[in-house]
Amino acid sequence: MTHDTFHEGLALLQQLEGCATPSLLDALAPLAPDLAQLAVSFVYGQLYTRPQLTLPQRQLATVAALAALGQARPQLKFHIAGALNVGCSPQEIIELMLHLVVYAGFPAGLNGLFAAREVFQERGHAPTTAAAPASPPVPPPADRYQAGWQALREVDGHAGEQVIASLAGIAPDLGRFVIEFAFGDIYTRPGLTLLQRELATVAALAAMGTAAPQLRVHLHGLLNVGATPAQMTEALMHIAAYAGFPAAINAVLLAQEVLAERASQHHG
Amino acid sequence: MTHDTFHEGLALLQQLEGCATPSLLDALAPLAPDLAQLAVSFVYGQLYTRPQLTLPQRQLATVAALAALGQARPQLKFHIAGALNVGCSPQEIIELMLHLVVYAGFPAGLNGLFAAREVFQERGHAPTTAAAPASPPVPPPADRYQAGWQALREVDGHAGEQVIASLAGIAPDLGRFVIEFAFGDIYTRPGLTLLQRELATVAALAAMGTAAPQLRVHLHGLLNVGATPAQMTEALMHIAAYAGFPAAINAVLLAQEVLAERASQHHG
Amino acid sequence: MTHDTFHEGLALLQQLEGCATPSLLDALAPLAPDLAQLAVSFVYGQLYTRPQLTLPQRQLATVAALAALGQARPQLKFHIAGALNVGCSPQEIIELMLHLVVYAGFPAGLNGLFAAREVFQERGHAPTTAAAPASPPVPPPADRYQAGWQALREVDGHAGEQVIASLAGIAPDLGRFVIEFAFGDIYTRPGLTLLQRELATVAALAAMGTAAPQLRVHLHGLLNVGATPAQMTEALMHIAAYAGFPAAINAVLLAQEVLAERASQHHG
Repeated sequence: MTHDTFHEGLALLQQLEGCATPSLLDALAPLAPDLAQLAVSFVYGQLYTRPQLTLPQRQLATVAALAALGQARPQLKFHIAGALNVGCSPQEIIELMLHLVVYAGFPAGLNGLFAAREVFQERGHAPTTAAAPASPPVPPPADRYQAGWQALREVDGHAGEQVIASLAGIAPDLGRFVIEFAFGDIYTRPGLTLLQRELATVAALAAMGTAAPQLRVHLHGLLNVGATPAQMTEALMHIAAYAGFPAAINAVLLAQEVLAERASQHHG
Repeated sequence: MTHDTFHEGLALLQQLEGCATPSLLDALAPLAPDLAQLAVSFVYGQLYTRPQLTLPQRQLATVAALAALGQARPQLKFHIAGALNVGCSPQEIIELMLHLVVYAGFPAGLNGLFAAREVFQERGHAPTTAAAPASPPVPPPADRYQAGWQALREVDGHAGEQVIASLAGIAPDLGRFVIEFAFGDIYTRPGLTLLQRELATVAALAAMGTAAPQLRVHLHGLLNVGATPAQMTEALMHIAAYAGFPAAINAVLLAQEVLAERASQHHG
Repeated sequence: MTHDTFHEGLALLQQLEGCATPSLLDALAPLAPDLAQLAVSFVYGQLYTRPQLTLPQRQLATVAALAALGQARPQLKFHIAGALNVGCSPQEIIELMLHLVVYAGFPAGLNGLFAAREVFQERGHAPTTAAAPASPPVPPPADRYQAGWQALREVDGHAGEQVIASLAGIAPDLGRFVIEFAFGDIYTRPGLTLLQRELATVAALAAMGTAAPQLRVHLHGLLNVGATPAQMTEALMHIAAYAGFPAAINAVLLAQEVLAERASQHHG
């Protein structure tokens, strides 16, 4: 943490918050100024400045992680605003919350959406008028099952098919819900690219730390829809700032296994 | 998600909320009307309408999951009210929060109870008067250890005895606390049947996603106290709506192992 | 739970809260007086009165667990106040929140700090003046990497070196961040002893229940910096009250493996 690291972090945080004097420095000044220094130097100076992900991608991952965890509302609102400041659209934020329903449940998605609504309102959007950033209604596909199977195969490939097969003997309807609802209703929607969806999925699952099998499937998914191994690893490292180092380390070691699996299949 | 699924879901949500125009539709209309459509069609139209669990059982599982997770207070209050609307008693809700102390800790139980108190007050109960839905005092059994051992054996059977044995070499007092407090003080209380207790336990542990060994023990417990395999699987599928699909899938696959263990013991 | 257990618990809770009539009894009296009885008798009468940990150590573990979990703010504030009442200093609480950033992320540390600020203010501290309990600025070591390596080796020993080695093939920079930030910037700070840091780490990781590999490393770390096996086990049992019995049981069984590893290395 050099003088330069702090000032690079400060510049990045100014850009993210859209103001000259980041609120974190003021908030912590009387009580724990060192924590503000560490946050600026490490999170924004060392981590955010790395080139493997764009700022909108980092904010998508941050917001996905915080919304999925669900217990850090002030930071969730701060980073939704930050996402808007670096170029994410309100529609992308809204669509992200719909997407997270699949992985963290409806309450997490709803509360993320309500946090986003507050941010939009504070910025002068008027969500009750025609000018509001309302999601345009997207009708579900006529054949949810077929559309879902196609999306699942495109994203998760063989690993996803294995999940459905594993449920056949105990809860085939749960497998059908994954196909119809998660993939048929949600993944087929516009508003986020598949790369954005998988980036958000991986960030959320890594932060939650409770779903290693699904994280493995979606690390494959993230690579399947076009992420590079370096982008995948970076998204997981990014999570250290929001869910702690253990979450990031465990996810990165899983990514190593996923890369080894793909290398062995390629050579096999 | 057909027209019918949406209207079946709407009817169910009207029953649960006890009003003609569910608040979720209004709350999401300007911002994300599609999420309201998906919630009504999938959660209430496809999932809640399945016959394997009664509505009070679904609400018990929902409230247990949300109280154990602890970070979705608006939804917790909504579903406590919903539980009352479909026939759960205030006493059952209160007893559920005492029960959850064992699996999610005192803070989760206390905050669940405080959320319930707000719901009771909003509905016109007056908890500071004699008309309040106060838990009748239940003295702990004179011999907590003996009463606890008996309850533990009845509920968890051999799997529960193994837990206590596994602690003998490292923390025998923790095993004693499980027997005396969790089973002697809590499980022996009236207010919830053993089937309700195990349904709540399994829903909470599946939603938390951090306690696979204990979930396994209590899947056995749920079957031991009279649930059918179809009810067990359904309770775990139900959790997809509140903690996400990964939590439900991982729990269902564990249930499959539990059923296989019981089949092999039966034939062994 | 005898008459004596309740009165021993009451005396301890009076000491912790610093008042004659604990607020918990009043808060629960109209709704669930049994839960208050169980909390006093079990948590404060049976668990807190055990001699293996001092009251300041128990409060450090409690506050670490609640801040890391992040979803029980009323209890977090109650136990920060309790920590101050039994002899922890405001500086130790502030430093604990900085420490938790490593294991639970910046949002958890920040929100813990903001909860602490409210407690300080309610007690008449004035954090915006020179009399405030501000952390004295601690400059990071000139060579964060060397200082971090040294701290990591001192605390985590061989198990910690293995973590860094495991990351070399997939995300060497994440390993570097662990060394520079977690150990170089944080562990080298004054304000908490290494024993306090590892006690807090172990309590937080056990409560979270999502990081078994890191909990294993830091159970070694806790013993490496001077804790006895009895203190280690007690700290994990203590977590039962705040994160539930499953979290405590899984952590205690991991501690048993750690002790066996150390015994086999000693004899090997």
